[in-house]
Order: sequence, then C-alpha cells, then structure tokens
Amino acid sequence: MHHMSGPVAHLGYARVDTQRSHRQGMPECVFCPGKTPTQVAEIMAVLFEREGLAVATRASRRTYQAVKQRLPQARYYTKARVVAAGQPKSTIDTLVLVASAGTVDIPVAEEAAVTAELLGLKVERLYDVGVAGLHRLLAEEESLHRADVIVVVAGMEGALASVVGGLVDCPVIAVPTSNGYGASMKGLSALLTMLTSCVPGVAVVNIDNGFGAAALAHRIARVGQPLHSDGGRDGRHPG
Amino acid sequence: MHHMSGPVAHLGYARVDTQRSHRQGMPECVFCPGKTPTQVAEIMAVLFEREGLAVATRASRRTYQAVKQRLPQARYYTKARVVAAGQPKSTIDTLVLVASAGTVDIPVAEEAAVTAELLGLKVERLYDVGVAGLHRLLAEEESLHRADVIVVVAGMEGALASVVGGLVDCPVIAVPTSNGYGASMKGLSALLTMLTSCVPGVAVVNIDNGFGAAALAHRIARVGQPLHSDGGRDGRHPG
Amino acid sequence: MHHMSGPVAHLGYARVDTQRSHRQGMPECVFCPGKTPTQVAEIMAVLFEREGLAVATRASRRTYQAVKQRLPQARYYTKARVVAAGQPKSTIDTLVLVASAGTVDIPVAEEAAVTAELLGLKVERLYDVGVAGLHRLLAEEESLHRADVIVVVAGMEGALASVVGGLVDCPVIAVPTSNGYGASMKGLSALLTMLTSCVPGVAVVNIDNGFGAAALAHRIARVGQPLHSDGGRDGRHPG
Amino acid sequence: MHHMSGPVAHLGYARVDTQRSHRQGMPECVFCPGKTPTQVAEIMAVLFEREGLAVATRASRRTYQAVKQRLPQARYYTKARVVAAGQPKSTIDTLVLVASAGTVDIPVAEEAAVTAELLGLKVERLYDVGVAGLHRLLAEEESLHRADVIVVVAGMEGALASVVGGLVDCPVIAVPTSNGYGASMKGLSALLTMLTSCVPGVAVVNIDNGFGAAALAHRIARVGQPLHSDGGRDGRHPG
Amino acid sequence: MHHMSGPVAHLGYARVDTQRSHRQGMPECVFCPGKTPTQVAEIMAVLFEREGLAVATRASRRTYQAVKQRLPQARYYTKARVVAAGQPKSTIDTLVLVASAGTVDIPVAEEAAVTAELLGLKVERLYDVGVAGLHRLLAEEESLHRADVIVVVAGMEGALASVVGGLVDCPVIAVPTSNGYGASMKGLSALLTMLTSCVPGVAVVNIDNGFGAAALAHRIARVGQPLHSDGGRDGRHPG
Amino acid sequence: MHHMSGPVAHLGYARVDTQRSHRQGMPECVFCPGKTPTQVAEIMAVLFEREGLAVATRASRRTYQAVKQRLPQARYYTKARVVAAGQPKSTIDTLVLVASAGTVDIPVAEEAAVTAELLGLKVERLYDVGVAGLHRLLAEEESLHRADVIVVVAGMEGALASVVGGLVDCPVIAVPTSNGYGASMKGLSALLTMLTSCVPGVAVVNIDNGFGAAALAHRIARVGQPLHSDGGRDGRHPG
Amino acid sequence: MHHMSGPVAHLGYARVDTQRSHRQGMPECVFCPGKTPTQVAEIMAVLFEREGLAVATRASRRTYQAVKQRLPQARYYTKARVVAAGQPKSTIDTLVLVASAGTVDIPVAEEAAVTAELLGLKVERLYDVGVAGLHRLLAEEESLHRADVIVVVAGMEGALASVVGGLVDCPVIAVPTSNGYGASMKGLSALLTMLTSCVPGVAVVNIDNGFGAAALAHRIARVGQPLHSDGGRDGRHPG
Amino acid sequence: MHHMSGPVAHLGYARVDTQRSHRQGMPECVFCPGKTPTQVAEIMAVLFEREGLAVATRASRRTYQAVKQRLPQARYYTKARVVAAGQPKSTIDTLVLVASAGTVDIPVAEEAAVTAELLGLKVERLYDVGVAGLHRLLAEEESLHRADVIVVVAGMEGALASVVGGLVDCPVIAVPTSNGYGASMKGLSALLTMLTSCVPGVAVVNIDNGFGAAALAHRIARVGQPLHSDGGRDGRHPG
Repeated sequence: MHHMSGPVAHLGYARVDTQRSHRQGMPECVFCPGKTPTQVAEIMAVLFEREGLAVATRASRRTYQAVKQRLPQARYYTKARVVAAGQPKSTIDTLVLVASAGTVDIPVAEEAAVTAELLGLKVERLYDVGVAGLHRLLAEEESLHRADVIVVVAGMEGALASVVGGLVDCPVIAVPTSNGYGASMKGLSALLTMLTSCVPGVAVVNIDNGFGAAALAHRIARVGQPLHSDGGRDGRHPG
Repeated sequence: MHHMSGPVAHLGYARVDTQRSHRQGMPECVFCPGKTPTQVAEIMAVLFEREGLAVATRASRRTYQAVKQRLPQARYYTKARVVAAGQPKSTIDTLVLVASAGTVDIPVAEEAAVTAELLGLKVERLYDVGVAGLHRLLAEEESLHRADVIVVVAGMEGALASVVGGLVDCPVIAVPTSNGYGASMKGLSALLTMLTSCVPGVAVVNIDNGFGAAALAHRIARVGQPLHSDGGRDGRHPG
Repeated sequence: MHHMSGPVAHLGYARVDTQRSHRQGMPECVFCPGKTPTQVAEIMAVLFEREGLAVATRASRRTYQAVKQRLPQARYYTKARVVAAGQPKSTIDTLVLVASAGTVDIPVAEEAAVTAELLGLKVERLYDVGVAGLHRLLAEEESLHRADVIVVVAGMEGALASVVGGLVDCPVIAVPTSNGYGASMKGLSALLTMLTSCVPGVAVVNIDNGFGAAALAHRIARVGQPLHSDGGRDGRHPG
Repeated sequence: MHHMSGPVAHLGYARVDTQRSHRQGMPECVFCPGKTPTQVAEIMAVLFEREGLAVATRASRRTYQAVKQRLPQARYYTKARVVAAGQPKSTIDTLVLVASAGTVDIPVAEEAAVTAELLGLKVERLYDVGVAGLHRLLAEEESLHRADVIVVVAGMEGALASVVGGLVDCPVIAVPTSNGYGASMKGLSALLTMLTSCVPGVAVVNIDNGFGAAALAHRIARVGQPLHSDGGRDGRHPG
Repeated sequence: MHHMSGPVAHLGYARVDTQRSHRQGMPECVFCPGKTPTQVAEIMAVLFEREGLAVATRASRRTYQAVKQRLPQARYYTKARVVAAGQPKSTIDTLVLVASAGTVDIPVAEEAAVTAELLGLKVERLYDVGVAGLHRLLAEEESLHRADVIVVVAGMEGALASVVGGLVDCPVIAVPTSNGYGASMKGLSALLTMLTSCVPGVAVVNIDNGFGAAALAHRIARVGQPLHSDGGRDGRHPG
Repeated sequence: MHHMSGPVAHLGYARVDTQRSHRQGMPECVFCPGKTPTQVAEIMAVLFEREGLAVATRASRRTYQAVKQRLPQARYYTKARVVAAGQPKSTIDTLVLVASAGTVDIPVAEEAAVTAELLGLKVERLYDVGVAGLHRLLAEEESLHRADVIVVVAGMEGALASVVGGLVDCPVIAVPTSNGYGASMKGLSALLTMLTSCVPGVAVVNIDNGFGAAALAHRIARVGQPLHSDGGRDGRHPG
Repeated sequence: MHHMSGPVAHLGYARVDTQRSHRQGMPECVFCPGKTPTQVAEIMAVLFEREGLAVATRASRRTYQAVKQRLPQARYYTKARVVAAGQPKSTIDTLVLVASAGTVDIPVAEEAAVTAELLGLKVERLYDVGVAGLHRLLAEEESLHRADVIVVVAGMEGALASVVGGLVDCPVIAVPTSNGYGASMKGLSALLTMLTSCVPGVAVVNIDNGFGAAALAHRIARVGQPLHSDGGRDGRHPG
Repeated sequence: MHHMSGPVAHLGYARVDTQRSHRQGMPECVFCPGKTPTQVAEIMAVLFEREGLAVATRASRRTYQAVKQRLPQARYYTKARVVAAGQPKSTIDTLVLVASAGTVDIPVAEEAAVTAELLGLKVERLYDVGVAGLHRLLAEEESLHRADVIVVVAGMEGALASVVGGLVDCPVIAVPTSNGYGASMKGLSALLTMLTSCVPGVAVVNIDNGFGAAALAHRIARVGQPLHSDGGRDGRHPG
C-alpha cells in the first residue's frame, strides 16, 4: 500500500506525482526499464486512479501482463511497446504527423504516435520516406503541409529532419534513433546531424525518445489554446 | 549585380531564397561567419528589398558598418551581435520568456530575444537565474507561468532547462552554451544534460544557437494561428 | 592457504591488505567483478579474521552463497548487491543522507547507504526526488538541512546534484549512474553535469560508484573527530 | 545602481546572491571569464558591502585594476589569479594541504590555496611532488599525515591522487588540470584517472577547478563544527 | 641543390616522388602546412621540371610569392588557396560537378574544382544549394544528371550528400567541411552523416579535403579509359 | 498485399522503390537488421517481380529460409550473409579486386564481393594480405595492377588502404571493419586511419559496409559506359 | 590442404607467414577471435610444422580441443587463454617481470607471462600490487630492480605504470586493461593515463594486449644479443 | 638560491631530482611549457651542476637566451626545439634509426634524434618515407635492418609504424604526431592506428612525444649492458 503526502503518493521505491497534469499539462508517465513489472503495475494503478489515464513506455509483454492483472482495462500497443489504461481528459484539434525514415525506425515512431494519441492529439503516420528515395517524400508533400506539428524519426544519417524542415513552416521535432551500425554510433550521428541542421526551427530530443517528442508536441499544441478556469490551458473535452 | 531565377537571387557565392517566408514562415536570415562584410551587406540588401526585413546574426561591428553603408536604416544590437533592417510583416500575440543561467550566457540569450522580437513575437527577459541559487528562480515563478514559450539558455551543467521544464506546462526550448571550462567541453556537457532531461517536452537546439531557438519559438507560435488567404499561417499585422 | 608477509596476506591471486583500516581509516573491501565466488569468499575470510569486518560489493547471489559457506554469519543486502560479515569497529555520529533521482537509481543508492552503515555512519534515505518534480524535493528540505553529508545519486541529466548543492551548506557527494539511454551515454552525461555544476563544493565520484561515495563520506565524517592513541582518527565505539 | 529584491541584488546583467553565506556556508564568489572588468567590480562592491568579503577568480590584472578603483582595499594574488577584498567572517581550525604534481600546475594549486585561506581555513603547500619521482612525495609523508583534508592538483596522467589517497585516511580532493599535451586531451585524461582511482574516498572536481576544491574543503571542514544560533554551522571568529 | 636517387629527388627535408604520375596516375602535389614557403618553392621547382605540372594546396599568399620567384609562371587561385605551374599532360572527357551547401564551403569546393581542372578533368560548379532550401537544388537537377562524377561539399549536418546521392546514378564524393559551430564539432558531424548515408555508393574523404575529392574523381575518370603504351591509363592530350 | 503508387509499392511498413535501378543505376537492396524475416521476404518478392533481381544483406539463415519459401530460386551466400534471387540485368567489363587484411575480415569482404558480382561486375579476391607481412601483398602486385577498382577491407589499424593506394593508380575503396579490440574501438580506429590516408584518391565508406563499397564500385564502373536509349548508363547484357 | 607460395602457406582464408621468425624474430602467432576452431587448428598445424612452435591467444577451451585433435602435443594455459605446441628455438637470458594491479587483471598478465615464456624469455610474476596499497609494491622493490624489462598490467586508473616507471631504470611496457566500469570506459582511461605518464621511457601497447607486451619484451631482449650467421639476432639455444 | 634536501634541490616552484640518473638511468630533463624562461634557466643550472648534463625540450628561442645567460655553454637545436648544456656521461653502442613519414613531422623526429644523441646513443635519420610512396621506404631497407631500435614518427594515418614493424625484428617505437587536419583529430587518429597495429612488438608513446621515444630507446639500449660498480647499468665512457 502507498500513503499520500500532499500531491505525492509514496510507494517506497517511488513518489508518484499525482498533480503533474495540473502542473506540466500532462500526467506522469512510467518509463519501464529498471522497474519490475510489479512496480510498474502498482504505479500505473495509482496514476489511473488519480489522473484517469496511465501510460507506460518501453514496456515488455511481461510488464503488460503484470499491469493487466492489476488494471484489466489496460491495453498493449505492441509495435510502440506502450501499455495504457484510460483515456485523455480532453482532445486537442492539432494534427501531428509522425514521419519515419526507415522500416527499422517504426518502433520509435509508434512510441511517438501512440503517446500523442493518448495525450489527445490527432495523429497521421508517414513511414519509410527516407532521403535515399526523395521522391517518396515529395509525393507526400500535401500531408506535410496539412500537419500542425511534424515528428521526424530517423536513424543512420538523420538527414530527413533537415529536408522536411526546409519544406514546411510548422515546428519539426527531430527524433534520432539508435538504429544503424558503424559510424552511426548508436544514434549519435543522427543526433548530431539533427542538432546542426541548417534549417532554423528544428527541435531535437534524445535518441529513441519517441515519448518525449509526443510530449513536446502536446506542449506545443496547448500554446494558444484558451485557458480553463482551473488555471491550466486545455483543449476540448472528448465526446 | 544579382540576377533572379524564379524565387532565387543568384549572387555568385550565394543563392538568396526570397520566398522562404512563404515556404517556411520566416525570411531567410544571414549567418555571418565565413562571409565577408560586403557579402553580408549584399545579401541583406536583396532580402530587405524582397521581404521587407533583413536579419544577420553573429555579426561583428565591422560587418554592421558594411551593411549600414548599403542599408542606412540598418541597426546593430550589440549584446546580441545582430544586424537588422526593416520590421516584421506581422506580430503574433505569443509571449516568449528568455531565461539565462549566468551573466556569461547573455549574448546567446540576447540573440534569441532580439531574433524573436524581429520575428514579431513578444519577449520578456529573465537573466542570471541559474540553479546554484534556486530561490532566484523560484522568486520569478509568476513570470514562468505567464509565458507561452520559454527559451532556457545555460552553459556548464545546463540543469536550468530541467528545473524550468518541471515547473511549467508550456514548451521549453533549451539552448546549451559553450561557456564554461574543463568538463563542460565547449557546451557538450550542457547539450547532453538538456537532451537527457527527465522532463518530457524539452526541445533542444544546437550549442549557442539562440537564433534557432527564436525560429523554433516562432514556428510554435504560429501553430493554431488562423490561416491567411495566401496559404500561410500568420498573426496580426502590426498597428 | 595463504601466507602472511608483514601486513599483507598472500593468496596467490591477491595480496590482502590487512592494515588498511589503520592506514586509510577503513578496511579493504572486495569488488567482486572479475573474481570467482571462491576467491571472494577466501579474501573475505582473511579480512573478517583480521579486521572483524568484511564487505564485498557488486556481489551476485551466487557469490553470496560461496561466502556464506565460508562465513556463516555473512548476510546479503539484495538491493545493494552487498555481502557483509561482522560489524564496524566504531560508529560516528555523522548523518549521511542518500538521495536518489529515480527508482532505477536505487541499487546504486543502496550500495552507498549500506556501505555507509557498515562503516559506522548514520544513514537516512530519500528516494525518487528527481528535478522533473521539484516540489517532491522541496517538500523534504528539512531532511536536507538535517544531514551532515549528502550523497546524491542520479542518472540521465544528473541535475539533482546541483539543485541539492544550492540548497544546503554541507558536502554533497554526487554519484552519476549509468541508468538512461541515448545521449546519457551510460552515465557520461550525468558525470559531466555533476563535474560542471555551478555550485561550488560538490564532490564527484565514478559512475555507479555508490561504494566510493560512502567511503568518501566516511573520510569526511572522521575530519574533526578526536585522534585515538593508535595514531588514527576514530569515532565512538558501538554500544 | 542596483536595487534589492529580498536577498538578491539586481544589477541587470546579474542577480547577486547576498545571503549565500547563510544558505551555502560561504559567500558567492565571482567567476570572471565572460564578465567585463566593470561588471566584476560592481558585483564585488555589492558582495563586499553585504558579506564583508568579496572574491573573484580567474581575474586578469586588468580586472584587478577595475576592482581596485572601486574597492581600494582589494588585493591581487598573482599566481592564483584571484582578486579579494575583506576577510573571512570566521576561521576554522582545519588544515588543508594543497599538493601539486608539477610546476606547471601551480596556478591551479594557488587558486585552491588562496581561496581556502580566504574561506578561513589553514593551508599548507607541497608543490612538484609528482609520481615520476616518488621519493619526493614519500619524503613528505609527515605533511600528508598532518593534514585534515588534502587537495591534489595534477595534470597529464594525474596518478598523484591515487598515490596520496592510498597513503592517508583523510578526504582527498582531486583537481585534474588541463596542463599537458597529446593524449592528455586538455585534462580529460587526468580527470578520468582520478575518477577511476582504485582508492575509495577520492573526491573529484572539474578540470582546473582549484576554487571548487577549496569550496569543498570548506564544506568538509564545517562538518562536525558546533552550530551557531543563526542556524548555520560555523567556526571560531578570528582574533 | 638536390640529388637524385632513382625516381626520388632528395632535398634533405623531403624526398620528392618524381614518378608518381607513372605509378599513381597523377603527379605528387604539395600540402603546404608545416612547410616553409622556401621549401614549397623548392619542391615545386623539382616537380615542375620532372612532371611539367606542379600543384600546391592550402597555400598562403606568402607561399605563392616564394613560388613565383622561383617559377615565374606560377599562378594563384585565391579562393581555392592553390598555387600551380604548368598544365596537365592530358585531359579526360569526364565532367565533374562540384556542388556546395553554403557560401562558407566555397574555399573547400574551389580546392576540389581547381585541382580537378589541373588534373585535366572538366568541371562545373553549383554552389549554395543546401537542403534548407531544397528547391534550389531540385531546380538544378539537369546539371546533376549531366555530370559523370559529383563532388558534394557540405558542413554542419552534411545532408546534401545523401540527397544528391539519391537523385543520381553516378559516383558521389562527399567532402565534409569544418564549417559550423557547436555540435558540428569541426566537421565531425558532417563526416558521420556522410559515412552513414542511406544511399549506397557515396564515397567519403577527410574533412575539408577538397584536394582528395579531386584526386579520387581523377582516379574514377581514368577507369575505362584506353591504356597507353607506357602501361598507364590515360586520356586525350590537350589540343 | 501491397498496392502501387506510381513507382512505389506500399507494404505498410515499407515503401519499395521499384524504379531505383532507373534512377540510381541499381535496384534497391534490403538491409535486414530491424526487419522480420517475413518482411524481408515480402519486400524481396516485390523487388524480384519488378527488377528481376532481389538482394538482401546481413541476412540470417532464418531470414533466408523465409525468403526461400516465397522465392524458391533464392540462394544464400553463407560467408557474405547475402540472400539473392535473380540475375543482374547486365554485366560490366570492369574488374573489382576485393582485398582483405585478415581472416576475420572475410565476411565483410565477401559481402562486397558477392554484391559486386550480383551487380554485374567481375570480381577477384585477395585475402589475408595485411601489412604485418608486407611481402604477402607485394607478391600480388600483378593482381593489384590488373584491377580497375580495388576494395580494401581492414580492421584494427586499417593501414592496408594507404599501402595499396600508394601502389596503384585506380580508385581504392576503403572499408574499415569493426574487428579488433581495445583501441580499435569497434572500427573507429580503422575508419580514422583510412580517412586520413596520405594517399590522395582513397574513398571511404562506413564501418563494415561491404555492400556500400560494391555499390560505389558499380557507380564507378558505369562512368564512361555508353548511354542507353532509356537515359541511364548501362553495360553489356549478359550472354 | 594448403599449398605453398614461397614463404607463405595458402589456406584459402589465410596466408600463413612461415618465415616470420626469420624476418621479425618470432613466429607468427594466431589471434583466435573471428576464426573457427578448425581454422585455428589448421593454421597451428602449418606453423608447428615449419617453425617448431605454434601459439594461439584468446583461445576458448573449445578451440583448444580442436587444436588438440590435430596436434596432440598442444597444451592449454587456462588463465592466459593460450594454446601452444612446441618449444622456443632458443632462450634469452633476459628477465621479464610481469606486474599486475589487481586480481581482475590476471588473465591479461598471464597472456603476457605465458607468451614471454613461449618466446624463450625468463619470467617472474608480481600480482595485485596496485597503487591503492602502495606498500605492497614498495615491499617488492628488489624484484623490480632485478628485472631487465617490466610489463605493467593495470585497468581502472592505470597509475601503476607511472609509479613503477619512476622507481626503475629498465624499459617498462604498460598494458591497460578493459577491467573497470564507468569512467574507465573499457580501458580507455588506463590507456590515456599510461600514454601521458610523466615518466619518460614507458612503452604503451593496446588495451588487453598482453601478447603484444610479450612480443615487445622479446624484441627488446634481442637488442645487444650477438648476431647469428643467418643475419638475424638470436639468443642461446636451449640446453 | 635553492636549498638541498637529500637528493632534491628545492627551488620553491620545483623540486629538482638530482639523483634521477642513478635511479632511472638518465638525468631529469626540463619540459618547458608552463615554466618561465628564468625558471628553466635556474633548473638547468642545478641539473648541469649535479649531473653534468642539462636538457630542456619544447624550448622557445627566448627560453634559450635566458638559459644562455646563466649557462654560456648552452646550445640550441633549432629544429628540435631543444636546449642543452654538457655531455652525456657515457655513450652506448646502440644504433637508433629515427624515421619520419613527412616533412611536417621533422620537429618531433628531431626532438627524438637530438635527445637520443644527448643520452649517448648513436643516431641515424631517415625522413619523408611515408607509405604514400612505399618505394621510398623499401629503397632504404638496409638502413632499417642495420638499426638496433627504430623510432617511427608519423602523423595523419600513422601507417608507417606498422609497415616498418613488419619489415624488421628490432623494437619499433611509434610516435604519433599532431600534424594533420580533420579526422586526424590532432594526432588521435595516428595514435589509435599505432596502438592497434597488427604487428606485435610496437611500442607507442604520447602524441608528439619525441623526447619520450628517445628516453625509451635509451632504457632499451641499456638492457644487456654490463652493470657498473655504482649499481646502475651503463655503457662505455666517451673518449
């Protein structure tokens, strides 16, 4: 059992932040590596109870099963390795396009796409449009221009972020991936490429951090949204 | 003399992109290192003629003087090392707070602040609020919560981005600076700190890239703005 | 069998330093990786016989079992991965607070906490107080101010050390952990963050080196303690 | 002119923390690089007025002259590149030994020694005792054993910290220096050496950070000192 | 004076290889850094006498003047920093397109272009076509398809090599440049980008090595050329 | 089932580029890591149908078996870890010599050799000729001089590329391998060696990228080949 | 079966250098990683037949068993992971002392010691004398002074090489090991320490390269030995 | 004035080791960077008085002039940047060949050659024999075989050490130099190349450390020399 101390639930090994959606605009999510399946399940139960939405990333199927026992409504997004229970409190009418360079980058792209959906954003996917075959990307320019925010997921040389950033006027969030070999140095090469992009206005997050890209897209989407009476900015409530 | 080829002005050493404000939402700006003062002046003259606004960053005083001869209305922002002529086509009612950790980070912070103003954003400054004296930051929490976008400029350990990101719900753009010595490795330490922030939703740009932070803030500010008849999103025109 | 040569016990593969508590103030401890369970057991038996206290870190359960066969009084601290037999010769009335940023950092934090206890120090624990939720830390300021020495254990961006260091006036020992992914580069990012802290007076030890942090806390605690007749500084004897 | 906001003096480019000696046990000191001589002088004037002691490190002679005009009692420690005005509020009866490996490391060693003296500690110096001539160090073992805290300053391979740490039982603060060439990589080699020392209880600070070593020594010295009525720990007042 | 030893002219500080055009297909060229102007002039005189062509790269104007005194027919390519005397023995009907990403990359691009011309290749230039404004590049697709070999010169993120490589079927030689700042790490970022290009068939040379790119283009151009009676492959002799 | 969109076959997880042989001169090949055996089989079936040749690299035997089920004519090159079905459309009368430094480098060398053969080039192999026994290489100088293009595959210090490059006048493609230990840093050492070769005209590709070396050799071989009526350069058709 | 081509035996995957003992003073030895047990056995059979001595390093027990089937006289040095058959042609009256810092470094130290013995040198071992307990080393100064060459094997901070080098006047060969964690970065830290040693005359070899240290000791031992009639230097033949 | 404390002369900023030739076989030499000309002169005077030989490396002409005033017999080796006074106590009949890859490496090669001569060794020079023109090296094989020890000085890819090491049976001391650009990373590339040499028996010293190479050659030369009555090994006394 946990005990509460103000807005924090003490579990011994964790202090669950149950007012984060108030403070940072989205509930605390669970990063699974380094936690036992039981710990993840216990934290998610607290979050679900307080926030109505519990999300865990980098979750193995075994972790999912532990959560499922505790929260029967939990579901597993296999490609994204995300476990979730509940729904976003509200949706925001902002379209996030998640584009990935290669087939191998899909798990990170799905982590971004699924997280964004769970945070109430609208999401489109555009996969395998790396610059080696530029016409595949240019054929989808309409999709690019329709988006409010674009998340670009790419490993190896990571050039896709610059090319997309040069074609559009909306914020581009670049997610380097650790896919690749040799001089890709586990994503460092793509990371540096994205940071040194000649296109102004590209935001970079950590290697493989699809979750962080979605969280950033969510913060961006809330800019310009009308303020709620509770002091936080928020979107329309679902249904 | 330059000659035009569609939306590009050929200057021999440069192809000036005169429709970038249409395509990327802001005019091309000039990055001075590696260009002679005369080249900067010539490019700015083309941009000013076509876009009504010409901006050059990392400009020395000598470059400013060359521009001034060509464009008498040019002005020099000394601390920011920015030369500009003209005004933004429109302003956007989005408040960007530029916070810096130390006195030594002010040139990069000013590059961000001045660029954001030139792109039509509203800007507030909050300098010397590094985490070594946390109370200096906490005393300004109201400023933090008022902002729509926060640019955090910090060298050395760069921890300010995480701390600010944990306090607010708006997008935080982290700019590592090359200030520091030893293990700061010319900004690499702050860069890594910011990329690995435990706070979801922190956007990172290149070391010392105050300009890029402002450009990203501008792209973010335009999300949710009503679309203009010319196909681009845009804000209100100035008075 | 081993043979003695002055203050060193020769085991063939190891020279056990049986006067280290005289010279460095604490007995030699065994770092298990690279040693067989049998070797660890044999070294611990020598240390226990001479020093009355034998400690081994990074010990697997299998190593514990080998030690247990040799030294039935041995006990295993699971979370800390520490095997120990015997008691500290003396206790010191110095309070060490071990604070960790995340749940995943607990094994390193426990290595520090358990070792400190085995060296005779008083220990409090404060876990999962990372800067992403700063209020969790600020709610515990009283604990921070009560401590004589604070060990801060953090992976990813490692900003917790700076924030704690800025709040207190006692020595802060920063332990970066290898937890994290991507740009955390197996703890290098947190290490650099801690080394470049803007707060003066933060001591840094190697990545994941909870043991070293405890040893340093022990050396610090002994400063100002009355000198014993045997030439070494020492604390009060237990009960 | 500056204006006060609680315990912070606003100078526009800096927020001077005038209660740091209350909170962190020592007054804020000025790190000169990136500040103009006039800014340094102005900050020091505020600090001297509030704290009775103002210290600036990495100060050029030109900066000293600017300070001198503002604070005639300012003095310049040439080898240490430190400017100071005023006296420590109290002294602490703790002996800090500053040992350096080579002649070239003396500026960093002096920064540590002078700062420690300005913070009220007792200081001895032991220079040019690098391990290439081990007998030079062993001849001074008595000095090593007399010290309460030892600051070891070394560039190139930085092995001195391990050797000293193995000989004594007090806290050893290791300061890598950027002196050296080739594989010393501006101090990185010495830094890594010190972090991976096999001797438990060695504290490491940033490359060339003599000031930080002194600040850490000061925090260590205050452990076990009797508490003052104002809530802070403190030493004896000077004569 | 120098003396000959078979195909090598001994100058004391240098052994000039006077049969390299026989063995490697092109004469030895002089890399100036680390050589005095007089040494460069002396080596070029030997090369000119034996090979009929002498080329020196990274030459300062002062070096040019020293060469000019010795070889009055020497000429200086200012932008390329190349000094040359004489003509290529033969020309090859292969078209090399030198494309550069930014204005700042022109010196390296010119080093490649001028060297290629001096080796008898046909050269076209296409400058300032970086991916931030992709339409500038796509507008020149005809030039790209006309080329037999393309040299791509780019700093910062270096994405141009991948984009060009994906559009054409001829060999692409990628030259990263040290232009940029922060995470570009003096060209390392562009180098890694180019090495990890998803486009198969991109050749990479050292950072800033315009000369090497031209030499590689020359070796490529000679593949498939008819063999001469002297055992080497060669092109048509100039008019 | 996949559906076509112009020259791209959409498979959901991949967009197969079925006109790449028209555009880049060779068909798209499949890089297996990160794709399931079923995905590889499905992509290869599309490629085989459209291009008449399907090639997959870094293929496990399990992947081969999945492909074999779908394309019974598929064959597995064990040492090269390549799966292929079909034949090159045309052959080119260009001789590629693949030389490797050590036995351990053979898998990468075979990836290069087999791919080159599949692209229609003539291939000779020269293995285990590292510079530690230079006479082994010099004994094969005739082979070196007979080649049109030489691929040099080497790990550890990678010096073979420079030595070969100095002996011949044809293009040398250097492939560093990740074989080695310690300071070879997974191929980084060999990569740097090859990039800094003093021999002008050495092309470098990514670590372990035998496939890329073959693709580059193929692009080189096509330079100077007569143009076909379809606008692409091409060689003679087989038998 | 293999066939001979002058002094090289061709095995398809390897060219065995059967005159290396003539040219480099010691027979070729086999580095096992990347070779199958059968390949190692086949190469050793050739070497044993021609040179009378065959040595393989980094050999698994499985490799040993394959060799044993082919060469029944083969023996396995378990700690050193060396397989050998035959005896050195001659012994040299040079004493090599192999000193290691920790128990964990013994495998590398044994690789050096066993190889040196197989090359005909006299060997003494001195293990677990790291600088954390300096007296353990100083107690053995007589051993140090008796040696003609000292091999120092150390991981973590690698300071032992400097300390030993400062005590003796003979060549010191430093072997960094990959043992350690965190900032030891798989031996890189020890490597840098040894390269930047302040003691002149320390030779460094690759991380974990005990074999290379022995080979270097062998080359050193042969300096000053009388020349044999066959043009090579050599030692006395064994009894 | 200095005062003596046993075998150490205290100068305040330095402890001059006046018995190093007894202990390490050669006198202490002065590394000039970080010392003032006056300090160098003062230390050299002490060394000259005690040892009869004083050597300073990396000496500017200004330092030489300061030494000259103090020690009129001092001489300056311009290319080597060495200042020396006095003669070696004894000479050793060992031939050291110093080979350098390029003209630019001559200063480091001369530092090695001059130091070796000052330590009493016989020296030959072989400059500008880099592997780009392998025949230049092979033409000098006789010189290589005549040498007892070979010092190989090379920047950029540093392959010369492996090639030489494979041709001879004597110890090869590899000195990487910081000459080069781009991926040579100030000598790191050459350093890694030399450490990972496939040739067993190559000793590596720090980047640009010509002095260290000479010191190592000197230690090697003394192995096998008859012992003197004073306990040190030594060679013949000069004429």
